Amino acid sequence: MGLEKDCPFQIGRGIPGEHNLITDVPSVRVAHRTLRDGDIQTGVTVVMPPGGNWFREKLPAAAQVINGFGKTAGLVQIEEMGTLETPIVLTNTLSVGTAWTALVRYMLAKDERIGRESATVNPVVCECNDGYLNDIRGLRVTEEDVLTALREAETAGRDFAEGDVGAGRGMSCLGFKGGIGSASRQVRIEEHDWVIGALTLCNFGRRGYLTVDGQKVGTLLKEQADPAASGQTGPQRDEKDKGSVIVILATDLPLSDRQLKRLCRRAAAGLARTGSYYGNGSGDIAIAFSTANRIPAESGEAVFTFRQLSDDRIESALEMSAEAVEEAVISALWHAETLTGRDGHVRIGLKEAWEARK
Amino acid sequence: MGLEKDCPFQIGRGIPGEHNLITDVPSVRVAHRTLRDGDIQTGVTVVMPPGGNWFREKLPAAAQVINGFGKTAGLVQIEEMGTLETPIVLTNTLSVGTAWTALVRYMLAKDERIGRESATVNPVVCECNDGYLNDIRGLRVTEEDVLTALREAETAGRDFAEGDVGAGRGMSCLGFKGGIGSASRQVRIEEHDWVIGALTLCNFGRRGYLTVDGQKVGTLLKEQADPAASGQTGPQRDEKDKGSVIVILATDLPLSDRQLKRLCRRAAAGLARTGSYYGNGSGDIAIAFSTANRIPAESGEAVFTFRQLSDDRIESALEMSAEAVEEAVISALWHAETLTGRDGHVRIGLKEAWEARK
Amino acid sequence: MGLEKDCPFQIGRGIPGEHNLITDVPSVRVAHRTLRDGDIQTGVTVVMPPGGNWFREKLPAAAQVINGFGKTAGLVQIEEMGTLETPIVLTNTLSVGTAWTALVRYMLAKDERIGRESATVNPVVCECNDGYLNDIRGLRVTEEDVLTALREAETAGRDFAEGDVGAGRGMSCLGFKGGIGSASRQVRIEEHDWVIGALTLCNFGRRGYLTVDGQKVGTLLKEQADPAASGQTGPQRDEKDKGSVIVILATDLPLSDRQLKRLCRRAAAGLARTGSYYGNGSGDIAIAFSTANRIPAESGEAVFTFRQLSDDRIESALEMSAEAVEEAVISALWHAETLTGRDGHVRIGLKEAWEARK
Amino acid sequence: MGLEKDCPFQIGRGIPGEHNLITDVPSVRVAHRTLRDGDIQTGVTVVMPPGGNWFREKLPAAAQVINGFGKTAGLVQIEEMGTLETPIVLTNTLSVGTAWTALVRYMLAKDERIGRESATVNPVVCECNDGYLNDIRGLRVTEEDVLTALREAETAGRDFAEGDVGAGRGMSCLGFKGGIGSASRQVRIEEHDWVIGALTLCNFGRRGYLTVDGQKVGTLLKEQADPAASGQTGPQRDEKDKGSVIVILATDLPLSDRQLKRLCRRAAAGLARTGSYYGNGSGDIAIAFSTANRIPAESGEAVFTFRQLSDDRIESALEMSAEAVEEAVISALWHAETLTGRDGHVRIGLKEAWEARK
Repeated sequence: MGLEKDCPFQIGRGIPGEHNLITDVPSVRVAHRTLRDGDIQTGVTVVMPPGGNWFREKLPAAAQVINGFGKTAGLVQIEEMGTLETPIVLTNTLSVGTAWTALVRYMLAKDERIGRESATVNPVVCECNDGYLNDIRGLRVTEEDVLTALREAETAGRDFAEGDVGAGRGMSCLGFKGGIGSASRQVRIEEHDWVIGALTLCNFGRRGYLTVDGQKVGTLLKEQADPAASGQTGPQRDEKDKGSVIVILATDLPLSDRQLKRLCRRAAAGLARTGSYYGNGSGDIAIAFSTANRIPAESGEAVFTFRQLSDDRIESALEMSAEAVEEAVISALWHAETLTGRDGHVRIGLKEAWEARK
Repeated sequence: MGLEKDCPFQIGRGIPGEHNLITDVPSVRVAHRTLRDGDIQTGVTVVMPPGGNWFREKLPAAAQVINGFGKTAGLVQIEEMGTLETPIVLTNTLSVGTAWTALVRYMLAKDERIGRESATVNPVVCECNDGYLNDIRGLRVTEEDVLTALREAETAGRDFAEGDVGAGRGMSCLGFKGGIGSASRQVRIEEHDWVIGALTLCNFGRRGYLTVDGQKVGTLLKEQADPAASGQTGPQRDEKDKGSVIVILATDLPLSDRQLKRLCRRAAAGLARTGSYYGNGSGDIAIAFSTANRIPAESGEAVFTFRQLSDDRIESALEMSAEAVEEAVISALWHAETLTGRDGHVRIGLKEAWEARK
Repeated sequence: MGLEKDCPFQIGRGIPGEHNLITDVPSVRVAHRTLRDGDIQTGVTVVMPPGGNWFREKLPAAAQVINGFGKTAGLVQIEEMGTLETPIVLTNTLSVGTAWTALVRYMLAKDERIGRESATVNPVVCECNDGYLNDIRGLRVTEEDVLTALREAETAGRDFAEGDVGAGRGMSCLGFKGGIGSASRQVRIEEHDWVIGALTLCNFGRRGYLTVDGQKVGTLLKEQADPAASGQTGPQRDEKDKGSVIVILATDLPLSDRQLKRLCRRAAAGLARTGSYYGNGSGDIAIAFSTANRIPAESGEAVFTFRQLSDDRIESALEMSAEAVEEAVISALWHAETLTGRDGHVRIGLKEAWEARK
Repeated sequence: MGLEKDCPFQIGRGIPGEHNLITDVPSVRVAHRTLRDGDIQTGVTVVMPPGGNWFREKLPAAAQVINGFGKTAGLVQIEEMGTLETPIVLTNTLSVGTAWTALVRYMLAKDERIGRESATVNPVVCECNDGYLNDIRGLRVTEEDVLTALREAETAGRDFAEGDVGAGRGMSCLGFKGGIGSASRQVRIEEHDWVIGALTLCNFGRRGYLTVDGQKVGTLLKEQADPAASGQTGPQRDEKDKGSVIVILATDLPLSDRQLKRLCRRAAAGLARTGSYYGNGSGDIAIAFSTANRIPAESGEAVFTFRQLSDDRIESALEMSAEAVEEAVISALWHAETLTGRDGHVRIGLKEAWEARK
């Protein structure tokens, strides 16, 4: 739900959509599968576009690598064909292969032509490294975990949890507990309201850099954020940014793949406002899709019509993409609770740190 | 061994390395795992760079997407960091996830710091769609198959099989049986001999387009290539190019990641000479690495020296990259035997077709 | 007119358009301004898209850098916005600035809003280095030369000269006299005929590599091509490829910028078939535009409809793009006459060499 | 000199170099040529790398297009070859052609081999649209203006003016008077101090967005920034971002072209912190070069050694690149004085607005 109205942190100047979530984009759904058991603090999050067989009814899509120290799979074909043909699965870095295979099985079950009369399918799997809090070497996510999240997304409502859930379970961000966040923004163009929704998997940034709507919260809470300073004994990561962040943008604006790539690039502005400079070891990747057009699959029309926003009117869509991403990051931190994970490693939740501040 | 000297087909003007294989680049090794059982006609091929822990001693590397209708994993990080840190695994499209996970396990076993003190590892897995001859929907490649090929590569000699083996088992190319091919070329620069080796997984192109050193063999053998014409009854693919081709280039030339990308782009010239125009549904991807420098890992020197070829002397390396790729493709076809696979689908081997011509 | 029917060289399998020129794409026009006077052997060629004020009615466009040792201006904005908003001017490398300014003046005269109420305009100027035959250091092309070519293009018919004319005047290619070539191909999709036209400024490639429809003409004519061998005394270029090639593709197919970029990439296949491996010093750049849609300018509709070909039917457009480029290159060589230029440097025309062969 | 210590605005956490200018990178020089006469408010700025013939001793370089609504020339070859071989000239958009030609003449005079035995040269010319304050349609910058700035740079000291000078003369930024800014940051790696310098040509952003080290100065000064509100009568631009920003980064860190591109991408973070979201009509382009290595030209060594920083130690270089860019932008605004230009259009200087605030 993004940042609630009574939250001490508020972001930007735009107007959120009804739920202030990526699911404000009609028929977009989200589901989590969370694993929490001692050293196992990880999970899966699914962003499911509208439609039931995306292989047959593809959506215009694009991606932008902001910093490429990452293992996201599926970008080569998105770049070439400008389409998304599966749900997007987010998980921890070393589980990409498992999620990939599960997503293939899910799509094969949907469409018997894949790999027979038709081409194969392009699974999109994104990741961040949750190895500080999670036993990532254990490869604990199973294909069944991924399929469970996919099936739950099919019937999910518009509301979903943020913070230390799903793929966000074991993530760290800007010195605090990271995770999944979401927000949305309305875009009014000539009397018509459209919406842009962002979902972020937040695992990036260095302690002390957290900035909320200009306020240097990271500096302010430096003491609270640091468990060592408050008696915790977990080993501290050095100040390298080994994290990552995944940004998913959805919109009902009629945008082409090129225009969606332009939206993706504005994720970089939203991230920078929260304290990111896209650290060396960070895999910062944005993927955007539009629900306004469907791309006809094989055996469809040879020539079709595509409704498209003029670039001359795209300004507020760019502006609000940056802002939705900014709020989604802060929302992830705000909703994530303090977590003790692998080998007693601790990450403090922002809300707890904020309330504990002097 | 590329094209033997008594082969009716000979390619280009350059001088092959000793074995005319990618393994002419010192310490590069190749191994296959082939699955052949009725509808199961698929496999795994491993290209292993020199060294035993590439995560600690990375190699300069680059990639180029020639046409991006493909699912190769690992390119995002190669592009950002300019390094290769695992062997390269080739397999069928829908087995990328399985190969990815197996390669992760292989690397985790090699280095306990991955995902703990160190970052995670970037597995590189390439693919083509062998669904015409293989039951690709069956996801028949297992993690153990991949690990077997990886372990075999560790102790492999310089020779290896080409044609309908490993990942090439179920592939089709230019109307004939496709598969794995390899070739190498010497590059003499100021009295010093270097070598460029190519390995190709060939699954691209349309019937009738095969060209060998200028000769329009595809037209010449149109009748022989077409099993329907000779009484075979397998269903025919239409004339869309749904294939793909993976090109791996290795060299001991001291090249930077930028220069290696330049080599990769010359794969496009080599492919075009054999009859490719990079069809719509083809995932045509080239990856190159150099064995001349090692990139220090974490905790190595802050500033190191990198030996580098001047771009002003790179001309013959570009020229010979194109030629090695060209020969590797023809060698794949020449060494692949006629195969009857899934549902009785047949692909004729080029050698058989050539010998049967009138 | 591409290669006439009685020309000993014929290319490919496709069907040319009516004139076998880029002007077969309705309302596309071409004009040359040729400077020929001793050491001055250079010029300007204009490719003019349909319409009179492209700044107000932009055309979908894309570009692909095949090898980037070149100075073409205007690609940054084509990549971002996916549009062409001026004619394309081709000239020699060091005259890009002059052509740029002339093209700005031409556009400023057309539209008084440029640089006032509206944004500035993005001139597209392409180049090759004609320094072997032309006194390129003399910067002999004037703004008036460029404006003359632009004005001539406005009223030009469908026919235009190929070979050693316009920007092609001083070019060399594959050891012969290079220049301007053009060709076109029909593309039939579901009973509808579209056309793809190519215009190439050919200045690339090494002696001995020329290949015509598979035939190794460069080897065959090695003696004829080499003026030194026939008593000429001009200094010989070494065997580095210091050339370049510009490829302009036009089509009435309804393609998006992403799809037009896909066409551009097929130029690499066409070039490779003629003997190019994209040499180190070559600036090999392709630009494509489609005349089927207009992009509304500022103050137009917020949401417009774009007719678009399904990628599933794009196969023959890719195939014929490669073939049109291949023929345009050979046509440039075939129509270029032997020329003695700067300091007595000589390039033999292909036709003359062919007729002189034993 | 970046922001003086008594300036009310201070940026970031890093330590500036000695002069807090790009010229803190040894032997980098800057010079301006400013045209100020009624409607003519424009100019030229030159950033000159160390060395006297960059064509013979090239510098490693890279560029990143952050938003490509721009006309910067020279990026194609920087991307391919990873080198800079001329000074960088900045001017207004419509004068790119003139600056291009002048820069060619300057280099031709330096080296008679250009365009004869050697290849041609790749001039790098960057631009922003100063049409609000300047009669940009008048093409008022002459070749002599550019040559004057180039010659002045040759003998310039380390200090240079910021604000409404040189290419920055007619620029507007975030609702205030824009222009040229600069700053530098030290980077300490293992007892060794390096420096990163930034120079920005600031012409981007929307009124109200200006943010200084987190403080929302744009909102605070909304009344002061708006000349209409204070009785000025010049027509107001609407709230579209039609501007642009050019970022030049220089460093003595031993970085490869790939690493320099990574620095360029951090410009996006620095810009975002000042209030940019990379508006639709903005040409946001960063170029970086390193002075630590020289790339041997033609006829140099075939294999040379390149000193290179490990990516594992690049973190603070990325961090400080973002910060230097952030300060350079604010410094441009702080040093720019209120200017009345074309048709009485006015832009208020930030310092004046700040001092006038209640």
